[in-house]
Amino acid sequence: MMCRHARRNGPGCWSRRNAVAVIHAQLQADCLVIGRFPLCHLLLLKDANYPWCILVPDREGISEIHQLTDAEQQQLIRESSQLARVLEKAFSADKLNIAALGNIVPQLHLHHIVRYRTDPAWPAPVWGRVAPRPYGEGQLAVLLEKLGVVLHGLTGYTPA
Amino acid sequence: MMCRHARRNGPGCWSRRNAVAVIHAQLQADCLVIGRFPLCHLLLLKDANYPWCILVPDREGISEIHQLTDAEQQQLIRESSQLARVLEKAFSADKLNIAALGNIVPQLHLHHIVRYRTDPAWPAPVWGRVAPRPYGEGQLAVLLEKLGVVLHGLTGYTPA
Repeated sequence: MMCRHARRNGPGCWSRRNAVAVIHAQLQADCLVIGRFPLCHLLLLKDANYPWCILVPDREGISEIHQLTDAEQQQLIRESSQLARVLEKAFSADKLNIAALGNIVPQLHLHHIVRYRTDPAWPAPVWGRVAPRPYGEGQLAVLLEKLGVVLHGLTGYTPA
Repeated sequence: MMCRHARRNGPGCWSRRNAVAVIHAQLQADCLVIGRFPLCHLLLLKDANYPWCILVPDREGISEIHQLTDAEQQQLIRESSQLARVLEKAFSADKLNIAALGNIVPQLHLHHIVRYRTDPAWPAPVWGRVAPRPYGEGQLAVLLEKLGVVLHGLTGYTPA
């Protein structure tokens, strides 16, 4: 049983024992689950137009960031910024776009999109601009290998 | 002179003495500055299609959340969630959209947009969907009065 009090006690308490949420079917269809941080699942969106990762806090019934506890919110921004730094560096991003929208998929999920001045939607936000482009098999393998390398060693991260 | 070390020491150190950044001209043109939290300026975007607030951390040369110090990041999410709760309740939001994009305005700014299932862009993200609609003078006065009331008393908030 999950102890909400225990979850407020600090990073040491973050563990898979707190895993309570099922990833929404739409996210499962659109993404690959590539790993997890203490709070969040890490997903890769299957759209070759942009390196696009999504953090999904493993908490049930949460659709807004502010519905997380204060400690969970702080953990979320720690995981988000760790991920953002890695994506920015590994993919030589011109900009990162970070967003919690959730108008269609209500489960809280935080987009982390690597943007380039040369990408097909720039400078607009990506949503609704260009149809998703599937990854080629080899291309996806190379990307996953690269992500595996750059994510390795991040605090609390474990690959799926 | 700003002491970066002092800024890491906790909420007690957050004060206007750390105000160092000028709000980007585009944000100044598109928004009204309505107040500030210890870290961020609070802006209202002049688009009557949606209640739309923006937090702008008062830090110079920052374009990504992860470029803030850890303490600043935690303060940002505290201010964001305080604001989000107030907006959700005061405007009976169906959903909040929270995003740091910055593809055009490089100064870090965090959108907080109240969404309704009946709004003109729903369920798409708002950007690029519907031309901004100016507030009528009376409508804006009513909105500012309402925001003033609901923001009053938030931790560290002061109206402009």
